[in-house]
Amino acid sequence: MIVLLQSTLAESEQRALAGRLEAWASDHGARLVGFGPGWGKCVEVDLAAGAEEEACASQVRQIDGIEAVLTASRPTHHVAGAGREPQRIEVGPARFGGGFASAIAGPCSVEEHDSLLALAWQLRRAGATALRGGAFKPRTSPYSFQGLGRPGLEILRSVSDQTGLPVVTEVLDPRAVELVAEFADVLQIGSRNMMNYALLSEAGGAGRPVLLKRGMSATLGEFLLAAEYLAHAGCSRILLCERGLRHFDPTVRNLLDLAAVPALKRVTHLPVVVDPSHGTGSAALVPAMLAAAAAAGADGFLVEVHPDPRHSVSDASQALSPEVFATALERASKVLEACDRRLARPAAETQPV
Amino acid sequence: MIVLLQSTLAESEQRALAGRLEAWASDHGARLVGFGPGWGKCVEVDLAAGAEEEACASQVRQIDGIEAVLTASRPTHHVAGAGREPQRIEVGPARFGGGFASAIAGPCSVEEHDSLLALAWQLRRAGATALRGGAFKPRTSPYSFQGLGRPGLEILRSVSDQTGLPVVTEVLDPRAVELVAEFADVLQIGSRNMMNYALLSEAGGAGRPVLLKRGMSATLGEFLLAAEYLAHAGCSRILLCERGLRHFDPTVRNLLDLAAVPALKRVTHLPVVVDPSHGTGSAALVPAMLAAAAAAGADGFLVEVHPDPRHSVSDASQALSPEVFATALERASKVLEACDRRLARPAAETQPV
Amino acid sequence: MIVLLQSTLAESEQRALAGRLEAWASDHGARLVGFGPGWGKCVEVDLAAGAEEEACASQVRQIDGIEAVLTASRPTHHVAGAGREPQRIEVGPARFGGGFASAIAGPCSVEEHDSLLALAWQLRRAGATALRGGAFKPRTSPYSFQGLGRPGLEILRSVSDQTGLPVVTEVLDPRAVELVAEFADVLQIGSRNMMNYALLSEAGGAGRPVLLKRGMSATLGEFLLAAEYLAHAGCSRILLCERGLRHFDPTVRNLLDLAAVPALKRVTHLPVVVDPSHGTGSAALVPAMLAAAAAAGADGFLVEVHPDPRHSVSDASQALSPEVFATALERASKVLEACDRRLARPAAETQPV
Amino acid sequence: MIVLLQSTLAESEQRALAGRLEAWASDHGARLVGFGPGWGKCVEVDLAAGAEEEACASQVRQIDGIEAVLTASRPTHHVAGAGREPQRIEVGPARFGGGFASAIAGPCSVEEHDSLLALAWQLRRAGATALRGGAFKPRTSPYSFQGLGRPGLEILRSVSDQTGLPVVTEVLDPRAVELVAEFADVLQIGSRNMMNYALLSEAGGAGRPVLLKRGMSATLGEFLLAAEYLAHAGCSRILLCERGLRHFDPTVRNLLDLAAVPALKRVTHLPVVVDPSHGTGSAALVPAMLAAAAAAGADGFLVEVHPDPRHSVSDASQALSPEVFATALERASKVLEACDRRLARPAAETQPV
Repeated sequence: MIVLLQSTLAESEQRALAGRLEAWASDHGARLVGFGPGWGKCVEVDLAAGAEEEACASQVRQIDGIEAVLTASRPTHHVAGAGREPQRIEVGPARFGGGFASAIAGPCSVEEHDSLLALAWQLRRAGATALRGGAFKPRTSPYSFQGLGRPGLEILRSVSDQTGLPVVTEVLDPRAVELVAEFADVLQIGSRNMMNYALLSEAGGAGRPVLLKRGMSATLGEFLLAAEYLAHAGCSRILLCERGLRHFDPTVRNLLDLAAVPALKRVTHLPVVVDPSHGTGSAALVPAMLAAAAAAGADGFLVEVHPDPRHSVSDASQALSPEVFATALERASKVLEACDRRLARPAAETQPV
Repeated sequence: MIVLLQSTLAESEQRALAGRLEAWASDHGARLVGFGPGWGKCVEVDLAAGAEEEACASQVRQIDGIEAVLTASRPTHHVAGAGREPQRIEVGPARFGGGFASAIAGPCSVEEHDSLLALAWQLRRAGATALRGGAFKPRTSPYSFQGLGRPGLEILRSVSDQTGLPVVTEVLDPRAVELVAEFADVLQIGSRNMMNYALLSEAGGAGRPVLLKRGMSATLGEFLLAAEYLAHAGCSRILLCERGLRHFDPTVRNLLDLAAVPALKRVTHLPVVVDPSHGTGSAALVPAMLAAAAAAGADGFLVEVHPDPRHSVSDASQALSPEVFATALERASKVLEACDRRLARPAAETQPV
Repeated sequence: MIVLLQSTLAESEQRALAGRLEAWASDHGARLVGFGPGWGKCVEVDLAAGAEEEACASQVRQIDGIEAVLTASRPTHHVAGAGREPQRIEVGPARFGGGFASAIAGPCSVEEHDSLLALAWQLRRAGATALRGGAFKPRTSPYSFQGLGRPGLEILRSVSDQTGLPVVTEVLDPRAVELVAEFADVLQIGSRNMMNYALLSEAGGAGRPVLLKRGMSATLGEFLLAAEYLAHAGCSRILLCERGLRHFDPTVRNLLDLAAVPALKRVTHLPVVVDPSHGTGSAALVPAMLAAAAAAGADGFLVEVHPDPRHSVSDASQALSPEVFATALERASKVLEACDRRLARPAAETQPV
Repeated sequence: MIVLLQSTLAESEQRALAGRLEAWASDHGARLVGFGPGWGKCVEVDLAAGAEEEACASQVRQIDGIEAVLTASRPTHHVAGAGREPQRIEVGPARFGGGFASAIAGPCSVEEHDSLLALAWQLRRAGATALRGGAFKPRTSPYSFQGLGRPGLEILRSVSDQTGLPVVTEVLDPRAVELVAEFADVLQIGSRNMMNYALLSEAGGAGRPVLLKRGMSATLGEFLLAAEYLAHAGCSRILLCERGLRHFDPTVRNLLDLAAVPALKRVTHLPVVVDPSHGTGSAALVPAMLAAAAAAGADGFLVEVHPDPRHSVSDASQALSPEVFATALERASKVLEACDRRLARPAAETQPV
């Protein structure tokens, strides 16, 4: 089992606490195997053969100065939901959780200011309460479009300021977290970086909510531990995002794991968002999966919308047109109501003429 | 490409037709590579290098006596949906497709008459329109309960006759198809047998509707070709059933592929049923996935319900109690209505007191 | 835990034994939950909460008339290797296990007598000691070549009788087991039928050795339980065959799990054969994987060879030419010797001129 | 298709070249869709409907100033093997490729100087020519041992200087590349970071060879494109490393894809290393998979060895003892010789007494 020490303890207090742990261990046939350099404020304890881990953990939790004790059946601390109310996270008009679901919509990558502004107003009218779009793009090939970078962030910020839709955008590099956090309302960590722990630690400390996408072959346990990295670095507003898994059928880009929504809600209080666009890779399947995500209990939706899907620079085949998005979101809204929840909607129209 | 000859042709007509195909082939640089023993009423044609398959297929379809021509992009004939209305299949009070969805519910295996009868009435009151239950069970171990066999079928028939709920039950062996068809209203082919072509051919010719479960790692293309085996043997009422895929996360028994529902509907006119019980393997996840399946467009639901889930002989952890099932089905019904469809319901109560 | 009763017991003896089990159970807070119809000669026992399963099993094994007791950690009986010498299976000149490995080679499907005879002699000269070839083919589409059937079996038998190479061929249907067993030296159960328990039970009782291929997404535990079905039906000569798993990379047909060879050998005494042809789906990868299988400890190799790979009726892209096969088998033979084992070879040349 | 401009062109030359491309495009019904910010020295060209991509690429490759043209069937430039000799990479006594294979061995994480030094001498005597060990560890939980960091690097350097074994160690953070490159002979990029493009770009420019591990669900195409990121950043000595894939059988930690070795060698000239330790996750399977990797054509082996496997801080169950490693490497060496290759060995013993 792993013992987390309170992070506020002075070094001398930590040493004293380690002494108390040593004493407990020697009384119980256990030993401290991890402690000191490389362990942060954690101590690993090897229990005596046959010892019952949960019972030992309960005892050790009583020791003064202990923040938490992690066991095989409870490997997380901050993101473990046991005994907590489901969390509601609000960002501008968007509300995730607590009976509300919100749509985050926008293009795969930011290409140009005026067209994005026009699209953002369309999205808002359709019921979206946040804007997505990539300024830094993770691309499988070094020769593919890598995003506009800082100019892309400036476009996003400007469009957000005019439309009132908060910005969700991806950060790829720990060295860019400060820059992205300056422009974005929510930092996105993509699937390929779910296990990029340097990035998680930096993004978790940026003072912004973080939308964390599940790795393309990550178990739910690994997903929650990645969220724990964010929380451990200080992040208190984490949105988990299911976005489809790698699998064997080449006719479908990803396999959307909607059962992850109720499964996650059993073990964490964090809101869960679903991305039916990457989750299927096919625009024709997105409306049905958006409705299904609403019925499965999702607290938010991340949907790729492009003003002219056939001419997008990237990921064209999965983007919806604004019109199809509006229709699909209406259906999802009705499904939410059938399930006693509601779509969070932006305030009444304020677009300047 | 594969050329299907009309099955009604006499042998001499077939020979004449083969001659016409030979003539076409020699005119077009193609050759007949498959023909005769082992090929049934099919001929495989190798096209000339660079020839456009769809164009060739269009020409050959004009030849008199040709039933169909299959190509890489259209590998099925009977189950291909192109240009067809979605099919509605009715079995007693159950209606699958055409704006209706129906619930098939019951225990994993048939254990005893009176308790099944009591359960069936509960299921009917909850809104189920068909009864499932296994008399022959496919079990990973030869030492696990293999089902009651014929006595189980007799119990199912008796309960069905009293409650008006048609029976859906699995058949495992081509030699048992006739027996099972005598007692069942719908034959079920399980996941492990999706590629058991001897069984498919026998079951397809039994004159009963067949519910075909997707193999645990079958692509949608393979799934449809398995359905084509049924159709080729004469079955005109096929229900496709998504039931979860094998995957890498040991905390979840199967990974339910709900996107298969809209994906199948784009390529076939057959109704699609979802099994959220095997599809998740966990009773706690079934209600959310039942609602999600309704939103995704499913035409039916296969749900495991047990009077006392903790004491089921098999698959206990995924069975719902009748009470939880009733609540979950009500939610699914509301979701269907939010999507402009309806749950087919049994006629008003007729249980003898 | 599952208790297997000795199969030779008369019914009255079984009842008496069940009484003794009841007595043990009531003494130990356990209860008999499975017994009677559908259970065969097995009894399932639910242990008291907290009871240690292995300890209970040890006690019950002492009771007179008990054949075996299966537990979570020991789910098989006949195929469990614990305490047994690795088995050597001999079929004609082929030897699988006990320091020997043998090559089974031949075309995907039997097409014609004379060409198969010529090929068989080539294979024999190259070092093969058994002949493979399909008379009944499991095909994803009902419109693909289904094999020659009985005439194909007759060709195989004739070629075998002339060349001295025993025949390994697939059976798909329990109703065809008797027919195939009449012509074949070894029955093959294909991947798609690994969980076709009706077929396993029939094939296991046919008095022939059986080569059982692993299902395309079967765990090793499921694979061994499928073998247990064969053994339970009376088969004492089972060859396990790893043939590649379904996976996510569309550029490779299957993913060959060579680590299954040493993993299986830790838990069973049965010989393990590797099929690098289906296991990779690409002729270019077969020679390297044949050598790798030899190094991994395989007791046999199943290799697809076609006299003219470009003109095979099925599975062309994975077949080797006889020349490439000969070279590849020589390398595998050297690798076997580097690992202190040997390739079983046919006796000196006897081909009539 | 993607056109790569020569990187040495001045900006004005690039503009002129873009003009020539525009001219070619307008002559051929194509258009330049990607160019300018976010595209680096690449231009994406949309071809006319029906145009043959390879033919167009051949034409464009003739234009002066073009470095390369990438197409669907040839998506990489630097790492594409077509027409190149297999590369041999030498690092101290280690030789990867060109008829030689080398063993990189050592503990999962660096724990302490003297024990590592003693182990390194044992490894050298056993035939290893490079030392592995983690100073920065990627851990699923933020509360697990994260490695000693810089002190760990100092230990590795000191042990390397004394034993002559070059150091292979992982880097997790682009900000730490310079530090790690100061101490290490080869930078390792782990599986979780295969798609961490910021890290790849930084590590590729560090002037050190890089060992790149395949992501746990990466296709070979994605793997090569990750290597292309390294090469694009300037790295000319890249070792690809297969280390097992995520899969469905919970009894095996990873599924080692040995067929990736010959499959990679068909499309790249880079050496390929195999990690049978992480690739199986089980010490009992490592010797057989080490031998199999040698037979499959691997140019190197990455093996976890711990002086006392039962007391390792991390990954205990997969580490070999030095004695088992020595025996296993001898067998692999014999297998290499059976395949006309050789194990690179360290010079004769020079350990000070």
